[in-house]
Amino acid sequence: MKRVAIAPGDGIGPEVIPSALEILRYYHPEWEYIPVYLGYECWKRTGDALSDKTLETLRKADLILFGAITTPPDPKYHSVVLRIRKELDLYANLRPVFGEGFDILIVRENTEGLYSGIEWQEKDRACTLRVVSLEGSRRIARFASACAKRRRRHLTIGNKANVLKSDVYFLEICVEEAEKAGISIDKKYIDSLVLDVLQHPSRYDVIVTTNIFGDILSDAAAFLEGGLGMLPSANIGRHQALFEPVHGSAPDIAGKGIANPIAAIRCVSLLLKYVGEKPRALAVERAIQKTIADGIKTPDLGGTATTDDVGRAVLRNLQAE
Amino acid sequence: MKRVAIAPGDGIGPEVIPSALEILRYYHPEWEYIPVYLGYECWKRTGDALSDKTLETLRKADLILFGAITTPPDPKYHSVVLRIRKELDLYANLRPVFGEGFDILIVRENTEGLYSGIEWQEKDRACTLRVVSLEGSRRIARFASACAKRRRRHLTIGNKANVLKSDVYFLEICVEEAEKAGISIDKKYIDSLVLDVLQHPSRYDVIVTTNIFGDILSDAAAFLEGGLGMLPSANIGRHQALFEPVHGSAPDIAGKGIANPIAAIRCVSLLLKYVGEKPRALAVERAIQKTIADGIKTPDLGGTATTDDVGRAVLRNLQAE
Ligand SMILES: CC(C)[C@H](C(=O)O)[C@@H](O)C(=O)O
Ligand SMILES: CC(C)[C@H](C(=O)O)[C@@H](O)C(=O)O
Repeated sequence: MKRVAIAPGDGIGPEVIPSALEILRYYHPEWEYIPVYLGYECWKRTGDALSDKTLETLRKADLILFGAITTPPDPKYHSVVLRIRKELDLYANLRPVFGEGFDILIVRENTEGLYSGIEWQEKDRACTLRVVSLEGSRRIARFASACAKRRRRHLTIGNKANVLKSDVYFLEICVEEAEKAGISIDKKYIDSLVLDVLQHPSRYDVIVTTNIFGDILSDAAAFLEGGLGMLPSANIGRHQALFEPVHGSAPDIAGKGIANPIAAIRCVSLLLKYVGEKPRALAVERAIQKTIADGIKTPDLGGTATTDDVGRAVLRNLQAE
Repeated sequence: MKRVAIAPGDGIGPEVIPSALEILRYYHPEWEYIPVYLGYECWKRTGDALSDKTLETLRKADLILFGAITTPPDPKYHSVVLRIRKELDLYANLRPVFGEGFDILIVRENTEGLYSGIEWQEKDRACTLRVVSLEGSRRIARFASACAKRRRRHLTIGNKANVLKSDVYFLEICVEEAEKAGISIDKKYIDSLVLDVLQHPSRYDVIVTTNIFGDILSDAAAFLEGGLGMLPSANIGRHQALFEPVHGSAPDIAGKGIANPIAAIRCVSLLLKYVGEKPRALAVERAIQKTIADGIKTPDLGGTATTDDVGRAVLRNLQAE
């Protein structure tokens, strides 16, 4: 029995989440699903993008299925996603990227580094503190090592230790944890790592790195899959996890019913893997592949199907397994 | 009349620099060329990778032609390139990336940001200070705007202002300077910028960004040209400039005479542009293209030519113009 918070958010979020939710309900009709209202629209209506009450609901959830948030240009607006990551201490951000001949899992530290929030302005300069803590590094290193152990037992540590002493620190801790886990490692500077992932993706298994490097690396790696449109992500904490398609709220196509729900549905696949139901996770991925192969595709993939057409086709394929 | 310091460095550096130097001497036999010894080999022999005397010579040079440096695994070894950038205050790092249908100039702030060197370790965490100064931002913004003004008059400002207040600061200064220069701008978050440059390179003209973002973005953009092997870079200061191929010292192929000298020769093209000799810079680029088209290529490009073969062919093509 799980409590699942459903937070569609803005733009195409409320259009793609229902398709994903239907797949999840198919496997788990017995779970409790709690709708949650947050984001930019919510902010415009209530003056609060993420109320304390909503945050409390999220805190009590085992799983969170998240849509997308429109970020207003207002610099005083604080990112809802960042706030949730911090408040719920969702310390591991996972971005799987796979395709013909490669299968990479990017594990990004999700709570510190340049996202410390420790910032100040002096007379004629602005400063941000990059914080790499022992505990923060150890838990992400352990997490990534454990992932690698269940996969091809190799961990690449993305770093800039040739420039940053804080990355010498990060690197040492990662090496230690990888050794304890008995997996092989290599260390790569983040600049050449980004390029090498693009040139030789098959060389990589799990990649662990600090917060902002992971942010950039994941988007670069999305190039291998043709962009952000189809990628899911997971934000994992000690007792709970949030799943979020990588694409944004896409206001330009919102309201037309043509948004591609595949990233959101893949979030369900990640979620199922997270709760230990790997065969089901794989079944969802197969059902997606079959849907695409059958030509049931939204306009972004060159098709004419609607969001619901794709969602229904995936579900049908699952039922037919 | 110019004073040019020639610093071949390690590995393939001393193999490719002579080819580049020959092209430069062809146009400027009257300039003064001063050989300079530095790098890892130098460190092994003299205990000093960059002596005060050498640094003084570099300081007095108008132009520096730099090869490559082998970075030893020793964490106490301080990067020669970083030290030169800082000592000579070479504040703008330029990486042109161009090919079929795109022509991008990446302008990277080269002295501050996460490269501030302000770092410390506390009991259970390591910290690095990211410093974005008014002066540092203004001069790079001005420089980039001036470049854009001579090109297609568009500037993209790579930033992470949705997370970093120091980038809100950077962004504001860049916008101000671009407005003064009368060029158009757009602002892009560095994660989506890296992806978009890969997907739509033709949309970009000049891109300005802070130090480490520029470091990563340039390597990612090198994917568009098939890797780092053929790319030159410039490090520009107030009164002098250093030119450096982007590839490293490549110890694996050093000593065989087969290193590709094209990146080094392109450094000469950049150098000529820097001193205001744009037609010659373009002639060098044409001579390179013709050499490749004639099949005179080193093994990395699938050919059988030696370093010297390629160098001589480029020179011949120049002489035949
Ligand atoms: C929206 C932004 C704050 C966020 C981040 O930087 O983490 C996004 O880029 C991501 O990767 O989830
Ligand atoms: C070698 C390293 C210190 C350097 C940097 O980070 O600037 C390199 O990556 C570069 O881009 O010139």
